[in-house]
Amino acid sequence: MISFRILQESKKSRARLGLLKTPHGEVQTPTLVPVATQATVKAMTADQVLATGTQLLICNTYHLHLRPGEGIVKKHGGLHAFMHWPRPLMTDSGGFQVFSLGFGMDRGTTKILKEDKRPIIKPGSQPKLVRIDERGVTFRSYIDGKKLYLDPKSSMRIQAALGADIAFAFDECPPPQATRAYHEESLRRTHRWAELSLNEHSKKQALYGIVQGGKYQDLRQKSALFIGKLGFEGFGIGGEFGASKPEMIRMIRWVTDTLPEEKPRHLLGIGYPEDIPKIIRAGVDTFDCIVPTHYARRGIAFVAKGRLDLKRRSCLNDHRPIDAACACPTCKNYSRAYLTHLLRAHEITPLTLITFHNLFWFNAYVARIREGIRRGTV
Amino acid sequence: MISFRILQESKKSRARLGLLKTPHGEVQTPTLVPVATQATVKAMTADQVLATGTQLLICNTYHLHLRPGEGIVKKHGGLHAFMHWPRPLMTDSGGFQVFSLGFGMDRGTTKILKEDKRPIIKPGSQPKLVRIDERGVTFRSYIDGKKLYLDPKSSMRIQAALGADIAFAFDECPPPQATRAYHEESLRRTHRWAELSLNEHSKKQALYGIVQGGKYQDLRQKSALFIGKLGFEGFGIGGEFGASKPEMIRMIRWVTDTLPEEKPRHLLGIGYPEDIPKIIRAGVDTFDCIVPTHYARRGIAFVAKGRLDLKRRSCLNDHRPIDAACACPTCKNYSRAYLTHLLRAHEITPLTLITFHNLFWFNAYVARIREGIRRGTV
Repeated sequence: MISFRILQESKKSRARLGLLKTPHGEVQTPTLVPVATQATVKAMTADQVLATGTQLLICNTYHLHLRPGEGIVKKHGGLHAFMHWPRPLMTDSGGFQVFSLGFGMDRGTTKILKEDKRPIIKPGSQPKLVRIDERGVTFRSYIDGKKLYLDPKSSMRIQAALGADIAFAFDECPPPQATRAYHEESLRRTHRWAELSLNEHSKKQALYGIVQGGKYQDLRQKSALFIGKLGFEGFGIGGEFGASKPEMIRMIRWVTDTLPEEKPRHLLGIGYPEDIPKIIRAGVDTFDCIVPTHYARRGIAFVAKGRLDLKRRSCLNDHRPIDAACACPTCKNYSRAYLTHLLRAHEITPLTLITFHNLFWFNAYVARIREGIRRGTV
Repeated sequence: MISFRILQESKKSRARLGLLKTPHGEVQTPTLVPVATQATVKAMTADQVLATGTQLLICNTYHLHLRPGEGIVKKHGGLHAFMHWPRPLMTDSGGFQVFSLGFGMDRGTTKILKEDKRPIIKPGSQPKLVRIDERGVTFRSYIDGKKLYLDPKSSMRIQAALGADIAFAFDECPPPQATRAYHEESLRRTHRWAELSLNEHSKKQALYGIVQGGKYQDLRQKSALFIGKLGFEGFGIGGEFGASKPEMIRMIRWVTDTLPEEKPRHLLGIGYPEDIPKIIRAGVDTFDCIVPTHYARRGIAFVAKGRLDLKRRSCLNDHRPIDAACACPTCKNYSRAYLTHLLRAHEITPLTLITFHNLFWFNAYVARIREGIRRGTV
């Protein structure tokens, strides 16, 4: 199904240059994995995504289960055919969305990292909209209120129907407000669900196990050890990553130091440009992230010096491209002034043009880091 | 600036095959002119528009005057450079929008053709938001409420700054509720404004005069005779076109029978697929129309048999392309099921994909009509 070969290991850090082979082609790692939540990268055609240098996409099992339903995708020949994406694909397990709909929604946020001073979540605590038990989770569709159920078996069945190259085990992603005792209880569940996922998963796709354990070093290491010994073909690193960036890197290292070296590691949902060299030096091979696409649709372009807010009126007289050093078609063909005009006029086109730039820019940025590993500078 | 050559005249109708040469290349006529109201075809990059076979675009003087302002476009090197469009461009005069903001807005519609039983508009009648006098019109910006003024001189100045290949004279576009007396008064104004526009216009761009006259045969012919004798390089046919499609064609013929044969004729704002062969047979060379792009953003695709509403749930199991006979990338790469899923999931991507199809489909449709004229069947 998939194979992973480490081509070069950094002598300066835990970074490694790898080659991930899948039924839909090869992926040079480390690499960014842009999100195609509902089977499309928002505001982009598949051909445009290919032209940004994107090697691998991740789709969302939870969203696609709710709409259009995995049956429709399967009858269509699977996600690759459905979305006209010829390269490798991942699907997450749906766990993160279900849990962020639970405790996250109760607290008015779906962000795992958000600080919250309200009462902590203890063993036995239950969110309002989601019912968690040892077997799985019951929740309601945000689209039509229909009662739904997800467990390791159904997550594997849905992911098999979607047919990505790489699926993820069904896990619980506990919120940062959870006590240590809750984390221990949740981790036991996640580990049992990992074994069940492995038993249930389609042999036609690779399966990654997910390491949890919150901000606790012993739990993270215990999880990496347990998940690392099961028969997964790669690993996801999920959950919260502490209150600060240095803490995040420390926590990733606890995991990457413990996981088997020879298998690929995917960091779930992380990746501002300033984080990327750090997570790669901490030993991460792939990482999915909404940052390039999400910011683009809010008019924010990434450039060498940081972020450029193209909604700003002052850009209307700026005839320069977003980034003069960028080789993307948006930078070759369009000015900041034009993009700013289109954003201010509430047009759709700039969302595409800026998304193109951001994805191209992120991919070029990560390609330079790969080159740095090759040359021994990262 | 521009030249127009009639390559072939139909023996069966008033249709003609023409070649319009502009500083930005040639246009084979008859042709559709997609609208790029705010200096973009909605949901499309310029490269995508080129790939639909589009030869000529029309931008909106009124919208671009309000936002970003013609000064910003001019400093940028004009519309072609601003919007990265290498082919010919038209700008309308702004008259239609100002007047639809006037009487149109008072009646809760900006559509000229809409039936209205409320009091008729007589000489001296004034809309609420727009002040019309013999010199020009005063109105407020819908963006910030700023008081603005347009007259033949300022319309010509704005259009010169925008720098399209073809500009239009400033005219009044009276509403269908106007009395004959109002039409007579308005036509005198439009004719005087045509002469003023001709005096004021930049010699760097071609200028089309606009024929008005409402549903009155004598006024239409009088207008075509008057405008036709002035030094315009082409003609627009504007205003209302009666209550029915046969009436519309009759009215267009009154005009095309009267206008000089050797100059190009542009029909303003008309073009459902079923109308297109008729307006071409009535002697129209170019016509702008929001239909392909507007309908696309509402999930409606044009096909040989009519229109396909891709928002319909039943399309979720339809693995066929929008139109099996269509050679566009949307039809080659994507199914109805996928497009329907994306529309129902409120994604942006299907707006692009369906707009691409519709423009490609309309352009291919008109190309077949050109071929028909060439072969003597139209």
